[in-house]
Amino acid sequence: MIKPLGDRVVVKPLAAEEKTASGIVLPDTAKEKPQQGEVIAVGTGRTLENGQKLALEVKVGDKVIYSKYAGTEIKLNNEEHLILNERDILAIME
Amino acid sequence: MIKPLGDRVVVKPLAAEEKTASGIVLPDTAKEKPQQGEVIAVGTGRTLENGQKLALEVKVGDKVIYSKYAGTEIKLNNEEHLILNERDILAIME
Amino acid sequence: MIKPLGDRVVVKPLAAEEKTASGIVLPDTAKEKPQQGEVIAVGTGRTLENGQKLALEVKVGDKVIYSKYAGTEIKLNNEEHLILNERDILAIME
Amino acid sequence: MIKPLGDRVVVKPLAAEEKTASGIVLPDTAKEKPQQGEVIAVGTGRTLENGQKLALEVKVGDKVIYSKYAGTEIKLNNEEHLILNERDILAIME
Amino acid sequence: MIKPLGDRVVVKPLAAEEKTASGIVLPDTAKEKPQQGEVIAVGTGRTLENGQKLALEVKVGDKVIYSKYAGTEIKLNNEEHLILNERDILAIME
Amino acid sequence: MIKPLGDRVVVKPLAAEEKTASGIVLPDTAKEKPQQGEVIAVGTGRTLENGQKLALEVKVGDKVIYSKYAGTEIKLNNEEHLILNERDILAIME
Amino acid sequence: MIKPLGDRVVVKPLAAEEKTASGIVLPDTAKEKPQQGEVIAVGTGRTLENGQKLALEVKVGDKVIYSKYAGTEIKLNNEEHLILNERDILAIME
Repeated sequence: MIKPLGDRVVVKPLAAEEKTASGIVLPDTAKEKPQQGEVIAVGTGRTLENGQKLALEVKVGDKVIYSKYAGTEIKLNNEEHLILNERDILAIME
Repeated sequence: MIKPLGDRVVVKPLAAEEKTASGIVLPDTAKEKPQQGEVIAVGTGRTLENGQKLALEVKVGDKVIYSKYAGTEIKLNNEEHLILNERDILAIME
Repeated sequence: MIKPLGDRVVVKPLAAEEKTASGIVLPDTAKEKPQQGEVIAVGTGRTLENGQKLALEVKVGDKVIYSKYAGTEIKLNNEEHLILNERDILAIME
Repeated sequence: MIKPLGDRVVVKPLAAEEKTASGIVLPDTAKEKPQQGEVIAVGTGRTLENGQKLALEVKVGDKVIYSKYAGTEIKLNNEEHLILNERDILAIME
Repeated sequence: MIKPLGDRVVVKPLAAEEKTASGIVLPDTAKEKPQQGEVIAVGTGRTLENGQKLALEVKVGDKVIYSKYAGTEIKLNNEEHLILNERDILAIME
Repeated sequence: MIKPLGDRVVVKPLAAEEKTASGIVLPDTAKEKPQQGEVIAVGTGRTLENGQKLALEVKVGDKVIYSKYAGTEIKLNNEEHLILNERDILAIME
Repeated sequence: MIKPLGDRVVVKPLAAEEKTASGIVLPDTAKEKPQQGEVIAVGTGRTLENGQKLALEVKVGDKVIYSKYAGTEIKLNNEEHLILNERDILAIME
């Protein structure tokens, strides 16, 4: 199992058929291409300068849109995943 | 449905006839071309360093002026939209 | 009507005769050319990191000097205006 | 009259005879040439992040040394003046 | 013995067989190649601006993923180690 | 007299014989050549973001080592002096 | 005697035989070559934005590892020393 640190999350990119089902289409011509994925692990949160721990806004299972060029690629169980900062996640699809 | 994170908002660009009706004309020759759109979803707000959540100043339905080069393009129901930070929104047209 | 967000203001540049009447002349040779205008709308203010809302120092009707290269040009009622951050306003002429 | 905003001040550069009288000579060969002037107007001060207003350390009438390349040139009553941030003022001559 | 300062940690890179056993494979083609290692020493933590000491999230013995280009190489008992900032550690493998 | 603002200090560079007497020799080959001088005036201190005024650590008469390329050169009573920020002073020689 | 200011420390680089004795070898091929030394003087500490003085984590006599390219070289009693910020010290060897 993988446990991201702080305000990081692990995201599994959505397959093509899942993207179509989501009703959101990310254009090929976009200046900064966003991508879709599912959150599979979240960190404990960000620590503010007053010492308060701020829980993340996303949770495991959320389908999210994130910046294409963000994050670090890793392979888990032979499948591609990304470790992202929560600030690279733009929106949740519901 | 799409739910932007933090201080982000989703904006639908106004069509040409709507722009004319607004009484505000954005010049073709402007150095930094602003654009007009309607807010269709807002995030939960920005978290200050003291832990306080700050609600956004714009709300769903607001007609806004925003910086042209800001944000990330996405397609919702086959129509072009933008995910913006609230700080890229300059003004509300009333 | 236009309502600027946060610490932004809308300024209408002064016409030539108004500039002369103000008694302040901005030299043609200045390194960073400032300009004169009248404030026609102000935002709700800047939010400090402790959550406090800080009202703007300028108000509607103030004649101000601002940095030439600051802001975003828009047209209101077919006249040129600028959306500026309050920090781009250098002084009030009284 | 001119009223600078925030932590800005308006300074009138000293004439040559006044500089000599001050007993401080700023060398021609200095890497970053400072200049001498008299404060003729001061802003209301800087607002700290806790909301406190911090009065300026300089006052009207102070003779000051400031960085040559700082500020914005304006003409008041046909004489050259500068709008500076207080942080561009290095010292007061007494 | 080595005692890292503040929010630094000392990490011993994992050997090839250990990496395979962890079930996490870091692709050769990754844009920013992360690496795996074991934490062998941790600092006393980061000091927040309010004076509070924030303990590190990782502890001795944790297997971690970290950014390849981060840190300073040292040799301890003739084996290669790295001194890293905790923020260069992306996740813990459990 | 000269009164530096905020966290600034005025320093008079030491003459060659004084440097030798101090027992500290600054090498000619140093990457970033420090210099020695005597503090002749200090500002009122630095204001923290909570409004507290922080007195300077150096006082008039201190012999100090400072970064060579820091500060602004001025002449007082026909002798060369420097206006420095306190952070450009590295150490006091006692 | 030398008294470093704020969060600075004075370090005397270790001689070759001392380095070997420490059991820590810093590789010649390291990307950013760290070095070893002994702390011979420490400043009064760093002042946080709330006014609190934060004592340094290192003390006189500590053997430390520091970044090679950090600091300012000085000679004390004809021996080479360095004035460093505490943040350029990576770890203490015990």
